[in-house]
Amino acid sequence: MKLRVDLLPHGGYSDTVLVVDILRATTTAVAYLERGASALLLTSSPEAALSLRDTVNDSGEVTRNERYLLGGERGGLPLPGFDFGNSPVEAAGQNFTGREVVMNTTNGTAAAHIAAQTGKHVLLASLVNAHAAARRARALAVEEIAIVCSGTDERVSLEDVYAAGVLAEYLLAMGEFTVDDGARIALTIRRNLGNPLEALSSSGHGVTLERLGLGEDVRWAARISESTVVPTLDQGSGSPQALRFIAG
Amino acid sequence: MKLRVDLLPHGGYSDTVLVVDILRATTTAVAYLERGASALLLTSSPEAALSLRDTVNDSGEVTRNERYLLGGERGGLPLPGFDFGNSPVEAAGQNFTGREVVMNTTNGTAAAHIAAQTGKHVLLASLVNAHAAARRARALAVEEIAIVCSGTDERVSLEDVYAAGVLAEYLLAMGEFTVDDGARIALTIRRNLGNPLEALSSSGHGVTLERLGLGEDVRWAARISESTVVPTLDQGSGSPQALRFIAG
Repeated sequence: MKLRVDLLPHGGYSDTVLVVDILRATTTAVAYLERGASALLLTSSPEAALSLRDTVNDSGEVTRNERYLLGGERGGLPLPGFDFGNSPVEAAGQNFTGREVVMNTTNGTAAAHIAAQTGKHVLLASLVNAHAAARRARALAVEEIAIVCSGTDERVSLEDVYAAGVLAEYLLAMGEFTVDDGARIALTIRRNLGNPLEALSSSGHGVTLERLGLGEDVRWAARISESTVVPTLDQGSGSPQALRFIAG
Repeated sequence: MKLRVDLLPHGGYSDTVLVVDILRATTTAVAYLERGASALLLTSSPEAALSLRDTVNDSGEVTRNERYLLGGERGGLPLPGFDFGNSPVEAAGQNFTGREVVMNTTNGTAAAHIAAQTGKHVLLASLVNAHAAARRARALAVEEIAIVCSGTDERVSLEDVYAAGVLAEYLLAMGEFTVDDGARIALTIRRNLGNPLEALSSSGHGVTLERLGLGEDVRWAARISESTVVPTLDQGSGSPQALRFIAG
């Protein structure tokens, strides 16, 4: 079995893909499902998210479909018209039972769309569900597991590489893999940059979130394997504009 | 002063840029200049390289401009019509006095073109000229040094990240820098993946070159700071199709 780690999304994934954007999209995704959301819809743009929830008639009146709640951010801050930011701490304080959460974020949702272009199985992974996500990937994969780091604004981000290293460690403990350069880099970062909170809070994105008053999200995202929920792409539903993930 | 390390070319460089593609373009570039080449012309395509050297008249006869020699590769192998591959060992056995070498390679020349779009000073760095390149960058930079890893086929390559770590170590010894996520990753790789030859020969690209019978090039590229030649973009000459580097 091959283990491939892309430090930025690249494409061309043929088998099982773990999408990683731990600050914060894939961490928040786990929290939404933990708190009862029946599905997550990852849209390709904020507009696509709004148009799922809102119908505008000829007189300009907006009708809201109560089935959907919108969560997302740009540059760490909530998007206009959205119901929630992209905060796992905020999500953990809500009850989403019976609702679908429509997500659009700067990096993670884009990475998921790249993964879904060719991947047979697409899972959202973070530190909080790392062991469950690795185990699920190992069970699904036939020839390759690709861990795809979302990065921040098309540059490699330390926290995603660290999380990829944690996932890679779990996978290597589960069986034989040939590893690529990306996997070796991720494993080296995981083993040498201290505990998860040290790594995340010292990353460029971690520092930015702390400055925005979102440090609690960083601490939340640094907990390892506390959830067994693995957001899993439901290939049979959704659309190219909105990928549908359910709890797996 | 800021130290930025991009594990893949990104763009938007405002000051001094060190372009790294140690297997093999930036290592070979140093060898060409060491062996007397008066300039390197890095073209944006193999065709642009051929058209610099060859003039075709109306009857289809080719006239060769003897001032130019062509060096380049695709997938590690020499390009059709070129005079040389992209091999530092091959270059070291030649005398290029009075000639200009026109280079086109898979990754390194593309990275140099991205760097040249906005960079004020663009230098080619490898392990073999690492200390000289770092010192030169430190002398030129006003606010930021960016180390740009070329990668391999748009994926991060271990050997370039390792070399970026070597350059970053030299720079940090020369003065105060604020470092980004990429620099921390490169420094961690440099400090934990053994000596240069271990790192290079175990990288994906190193293994490929060994298979192609080019293992001597890998060993050549693993020598640290044996040359003081730093290929330096001559901003006043060249063209968008062919960046002109001279020994600095």
